[in-house]
Amino acid sequence: MAQSRIAIIGTGLIGTSIGLSLSGRKERNFEVVGADRDRANARAAKKMGALDREVGSLEEAVEGAGLVILAVPVMAAKPLLQEIGKLLEPGAVVTDVCSTKADILRWAEEFLPETAHFVGGHPMAGREKSGPEAASADLFKDATWAITPSPRADERAVDVVLGFVESMGAVPLYIDPAEHDQYAAAVSHLPLLLSVALFRMVRDSHGWEDAALLAGPGFRDLTRLASGDPTMSRDIMMTNRDAVLHWIGRIQQELSTVQKAIELGGEPVLDLFRSTQLDRDTFIMNPPTRRRPEGPEAPSAQDAMARLFVGGLYDKMKDATNRVTASRDDAELRRKLGMTDESRDR
Amino acid sequence: MAQSRIAIIGTGLIGTSIGLSLSGRKERNFEVVGADRDRANARAAKKMGALDREVGSLEEAVEGAGLVILAVPVMAAKPLLQEIGKLLEPGAVVTDVCSTKADILRWAEEFLPETAHFVGGHPMAGREKSGPEAASADLFKDATWAITPSPRADERAVDVVLGFVESMGAVPLYIDPAEHDQYAAAVSHLPLLLSVALFRMVRDSHGWEDAALLAGPGFRDLTRLASGDPTMSRDIMMTNRDAVLHWIGRIQQELSTVQKAIELGGEPVLDLFRSTQLDRDTFIMNPPTRRRPEGPEAPSAQDAMARLFVGGLYDKMKDATNRVTASRDDAELRRKLGMTDESRDR
Repeated sequence: MAQSRIAIIGTGLIGTSIGLSLSGRKERNFEVVGADRDRANARAAKKMGALDREVGSLEEAVEGAGLVILAVPVMAAKPLLQEIGKLLEPGAVVTDVCSTKADILRWAEEFLPETAHFVGGHPMAGREKSGPEAASADLFKDATWAITPSPRADERAVDVVLGFVESMGAVPLYIDPAEHDQYAAAVSHLPLLLSVALFRMVRDSHGWEDAALLAGPGFRDLTRLASGDPTMSRDIMMTNRDAVLHWIGRIQQELSTVQKAIELGGEPVLDLFRSTQLDRDTFIMNPPTRRRPEGPEAPSAQDAMARLFVGGLYDKMKDATNRVTASRDDAELRRKLGMTDESRDR
Repeated sequence: MAQSRIAIIGTGLIGTSIGLSLSGRKERNFEVVGADRDRANARAAKKMGALDREVGSLEEAVEGAGLVILAVPVMAAKPLLQEIGKLLEPGAVVTDVCSTKADILRWAEEFLPETAHFVGGHPMAGREKSGPEAASADLFKDATWAITPSPRADERAVDVVLGFVESMGAVPLYIDPAEHDQYAAAVSHLPLLLSVALFRMVRDSHGWEDAALLAGPGFRDLTRLASGDPTMSRDIMMTNRDAVLHWIGRIQQELSTVQKAIELGGEPVLDLFRSTQLDRDTFIMNPPTRRRPEGPEAPSAQDAMARLFVGGLYDKMKDATNRVTASRDDAELRRKLGMTDESRDR
C-alpha cells in the first residue's frame, strides 16, 4: 500500500507530462501525488488530470512514496534533496529529469540517506512553451531518456526507473554523468545558446522591425529554444559551465571556417553544404541504434509498469537497453554505470 | 488565349508547390506549363497534378506565357534570363522566387527586353526536404512573400504578381532589393549557416556516435536548415556575400557576450535568458503587422486570380498591401519601389 505511490515534485511542462502519462494508464496500482512551489501550477496539473492529489508540502508529497520524481530546474534540486533526505521512506527510489547530471549525482550522494536510492534521469524532450498548460501525455514518446544511476543505487532501484522510463514510451540510455554533460552541452545546451544569440542579435539590431517582417519558419525554428524556461537555462549554464564554454569556443572556430570558405567562394562552399546535407540526412534517416528491440524478448511497458512496485528484476529489459552500449565490455559498462568503487574519482 | 498561360521554370519544392496551388484552383482560365533542367523533376510535378503540361525546352515553356515564374537557385536564374529574353511574348510578366534579390534585379534589367516586365519575388517559406515530392499546395499559406519590382516594370505587371502572390495564400510585402538582402541575411541566411556549423561541429567531433544518441528535438530543429538544397545555399552565399559576412561577424560578437556572461555567472545570465524569452514570446504572439486586412475592402484571392490576366488594377489590394509600410511617406515608398529615376544608383 504505502509503496503504491508516486510523487512528482515540480509540475511544470515535464512534471505534468509525466503525471498525465502515469495517470492515463488503464490498470494502474498506484496513486500519483504532486507538489509545486507555485501551488497554482500543481492545481492546474491536478485539474488537467495529471495528479490524483495535489499537496501543499514536501512532507505530504514524499510520505509513503516508493518513487519520487524531481521535475525542477537543476539548481532547485539541491535544496530539495536536502529536505527530502529526512522524509523519504526506507527503500524509496528517487529520480530526476534535470538537464545536467554530474552535480545532482553528487548532491544525491551527499544529502540522501543510505536507505534511499538515487537514479538520475534526463528525457531528451521539450517544447517551445513551458508550464503545466503545455504538457502532454505523449511528450516522451520515442525520446531518448538518459539514465545515470548513483553508485549506491541497488539493482531494484535501477529497474524501477527503467520501468518508469519505458512506461513513458521513452527509450532508456545508460550513460556516465560526466559524459552525459559533455555531450548534452554539444547537442542541447549550445543549441540553446545559439537560439538566444541569434534572437538577441536580430532583435537588438537597428533594422529589427523590417527584418521581423521577413522572418519566416527558418528563423522561428532556429530561435525556438530561446523561449524556454529562463531559470532552467540559467541552471544548465551554472552546472555545466566548462563544457558549455568549450563548445562555444568550438562553434566560434566552426563559424570562422565557414566565414573563410564564403570569402574564398566557389567549390569549397558547395562541398560544405553538400557534405553537411548528406551527413544530416543520413543521421535523420538512420539515427544511431537506440530503438527498443522488437519481438518476444522485449518486455512491454505494460509489464514494466505492472511490476514497477513488485521489485521484479527486468533482466530482459536491461539486456535490451544495454545493447546500445554493446561495443563496450562489461567492465567498461560497469565503470560507466559507476558500479565499481575505483570507477569514480570525485 | 495566348495570355492565359503560366510558365513555371524549375519544378523543385517551390516550383511544384506553386504549380499545385495554381492547378488546384476551381474556376481557372489559364494553363500551367512547366519545365525543369532535370526532366524527371518536371515529370514528377506533372504526375502530382502541379502542371497541365510538361515541356522539354524553354522555348515551349515560355511561348505564349503571360506570366513566367523562375523557381530555380539564384545563380541558375542568370543564364535563364539571358535565354528567355528573346523568347518572351511582348508584355510578358516575369517573376522569381530566389533567396536574394539585388543581383537578379540587375540581371533582369540587363537581359530582358523593354517589352517584358520583371517583378522579383521571394516567399519566406520552405521545408526540410527539397524536390517536387516534398511540395504541397499550401506551402505558402500566410507566409510573407517579398516583392521587389524592377524600376521598369509597369503597374499592371506589379498587379499581376500581387494577384499571383495573393492567390498562393501568401502576404505580399514590398521591399527594396538591397534591404531585402540585408535583412534576409540576418533572419534566413545566417540561420542556415548556424545550422550547418552546428551540425558539422558535432558530426566532426570525437564523440559523435555517443552525442548523436542524446540528440533530441532541439538539435534536430536547430540543424534542419542544413538539409536544404546545397546549390541554393551556395548561390545565396555567392550573391549576398557581404551581408552574410557582416552577420557572421555580428553573431560571433553576440556569442562572445554570451560566453562572458556565463563566465561571470549569476544574475546577468538569468537576465539574458529572461529578456530573450520575453522578447521572443512577444514576437511570436504579436508578429509585426503583415496580415491581410479583413472585411469587405480586402479583395479575395479568388478575385485576384480571376482578374490575373484581365489587366485589372487592384487598387484596393495595393492599398491593403501598402499598409505594412504605412509609416513611410509616399515618396519614400516610391523610392523603395524604385519608381523614380533618382532612386536607384546602380
